[in-house]
Amino acid sequence: MAEKLLGSIEAGGTKFVCGVGTDDLTIVNRVSFPTTTPAETMKLVIDYFKQFDLKAIGVGSFGPIDIHQDSATYGFITTTPKLAWENFDFIGALKKYFDIPIAWTTDVNAAAYGEYVAGSAQGLASCVYYTIGTGIGGGAIQEGQFIEGFSHPEMGHMIVKKHPKDTFVGNCPFHQDCLEGMAAGPAIEKRAGQKGQELPADHVAWAMEAYYIAQAVYNTTLLLSPDVMILGGGVMQQPQLLPKIRFEFEKMLKNYVKTPLLEEYIVTPKLGNDAGTIGCLALARKTAI
Amino acid sequence: MAEKLLGSIEAGGTKFVCGVGTDDLTIVNRVSFPTTTPAETMKLVIDYFKQFDLKAIGVGSFGPIDIHQDSATYGFITTTPKLAWENFDFIGALKKYFDIPIAWTTDVNAAAYGEYVAGSAQGLASCVYYTIGTGIGGGAIQEGQFIEGFSHPEMGHMIVKKHPKDTFVGNCPFHQDCLEGMAAGPAIEKRAGQKGQELPADHVAWAMEAYYIAQAVYNTTLLLSPDVMILGGGVMQQPQLLPKIRFEFEKMLKNYVKTPLLEEYIVTPKLGNDAGTIGCLALARKTAI
Ligand SMILES: Nc1ncnc2c1ncn2[C@@H]1O[C@H](COP(=O)(O)OP(=O)(O)O)[C@@H](O)[C@H]1O
Ligand SMILES: Nc1ncnc2c1ncn2[C@@H]1O[C@H](COP(=O)(O)OP(=O)(O)O)[C@@H](O)[C@H]1O
Ligand SMILES: [Zn+2]
Ligand SMILES: [Zn+2]
Repeated sequence: MAEKLLGSIEAGGTKFVCGVGTDDLTIVNRVSFPTTTPAETMKLVIDYFKQFDLKAIGVGSFGPIDIHQDSATYGFITTTPKLAWENFDFIGALKKYFDIPIAWTTDVNAAAYGEYVAGSAQGLASCVYYTIGTGIGGGAIQEGQFIEGFSHPEMGHMIVKKHPKDTFVGNCPFHQDCLEGMAAGPAIEKRAGQKGQELPADHVAWAMEAYYIAQAVYNTTLLLSPDVMILGGGVMQQPQLLPKIRFEFEKMLKNYVKTPLLEEYIVTPKLGNDAGTIGCLALARKTAI
Repeated sequence: MAEKLLGSIEAGGTKFVCGVGTDDLTIVNRVSFPTTTPAETMKLVIDYFKQFDLKAIGVGSFGPIDIHQDSATYGFITTTPKLAWENFDFIGALKKYFDIPIAWTTDVNAAAYGEYVAGSAQGLASCVYYTIGTGIGGGAIQEGQFIEGFSHPEMGHMIVKKHPKDTFVGNCPFHQDCLEGMAAGPAIEKRAGQKGQELPADHVAWAMEAYYIAQAVYNTTLLLSPDVMILGGGVMQQPQLLPKIRFEFEKMLKNYVKTPLLEEYIVTPKLGNDAGTIGCLALARKTAI
């Protein structure tokens, strides 16, 4: 009899990535579906997983989501701006077809967990993972546990100081000039009139970007002092950004705390685009035990 | 035979508060010594505790301190501006006289722990505690564990946006206009030319103070979303401050996350000045088991 597999669902705002893997976190199959409505998208997800003999599923979802096991709406996506998904009972929809343990967390927590078990934070006691893409999100892990309380983190909306040369007013629909409003991909595009991928490496936008992300790294250092700070997402594919962020961070910190070596402290994800899938598989593995 | 007692040391920058208590966290005796040199102060501490039959001691110390059990300088105060105490082997000095389990954390973590086990966070799964006094410090607890990584938090130095009417440049020797540089007691005094205790309740300084502290509460909410946020220290003795902070926080959050009721979410310490002692006793009790 073949070994049962682990299932992984990265539920993103534009696409769902579903995959299956083995206990050693090898991805054996992976597909992707557009995020349309729960009825359409979840049908594809369920049909996909029906092909396999699964022992557990790990879900990392866009949010906000309800993570409280004792809540009546545990496993729901809650107040998302994607209205078709508002108050959608994600775990309930899966449980109808798969009577197996299902782990449930945010998309960025899942990626953080992937990096924690098998990536840039492997062997360390704690990490923080930021994704800087269409939005900005963050997740934190200490001793295998997600940092959370009344809800999961929403680090992307922290307060930042404006770069002295920046005239862009910000585009967060909630806070206007929060971190996400100043530094997510769409903010870069709106400020420069061009997508990040098209801007030259020496464009002033990257100095501003580094200044904003360094503030996030700085505040996160003071609040959590994780063993490593992992920066992922599309925007971080600009290779000139990481050294600029380290430089700005060092200027802000003024040696106030003694961090690990910056080249080891502020890094990109070792698993790249696989962080989310591997994280979901690892969460499935953990919940199956 | 009398029951053995728990010892508590709150090692502050201006004074040491030592006490003993019972397993139910009742303080049975407490004294205070000025913080001068390690030789002088620690002699008083050791002579004090020699009077009792102790089973464990909990220490909450000013810092920065080394909290890594596997470090060669575990139990040391490290790079403090109080030069006489720099690189002082605090736990080593105690261990010479008391061959019993000793718990070791920061002063603000100890107060946070007191509130967690017996104060405003009792019965909750997580909390953050800020002290706003001569300096600003913060500690966080989740499921009984301190939030920490390569070191303990230093939340007092986070980045804040300047209040539009504030002309004070800030007085943090490291960062100038960080949270502590704009909002600790000495900053209030320097801005207004008068100590906080002497300013009228409707002075504009309190609107600014509330704006800065609300930013700390806001960022901490996004990073940690603790079940309760406890604000202590001398400055918080101004009763008009707490409602102003809640008001500013609500304005910043724009309903982006659904926090607990603000009257229950942003509160002052239930244990008041006993939070530190009770926290150290509770840490001693935990390490004695
Ligand atoms: N190589 C790149 N350089 C700069 N910006 C990029 C790059 N790739 C993607 N982006 C920006 O990142 C955003 C998309 O983020 P991404 O992480 O790829 O996906 P998502 O966040 O939607 O999952 C877009 O705003 C895009 O312009
Ligand atoms: N009732 C009060 N109102 C406003 N400010 C106060 C009050 N009491 C103390 N402070 C200020 O708090 C600071 C001292 O903080 P405190 O928490 O009492 O001690 P410490 O931080 O040194 O342990 C001083 O700057 C003082 O001016
Ligand atoms: Zn925002
Ligand atoms: Zn500072």
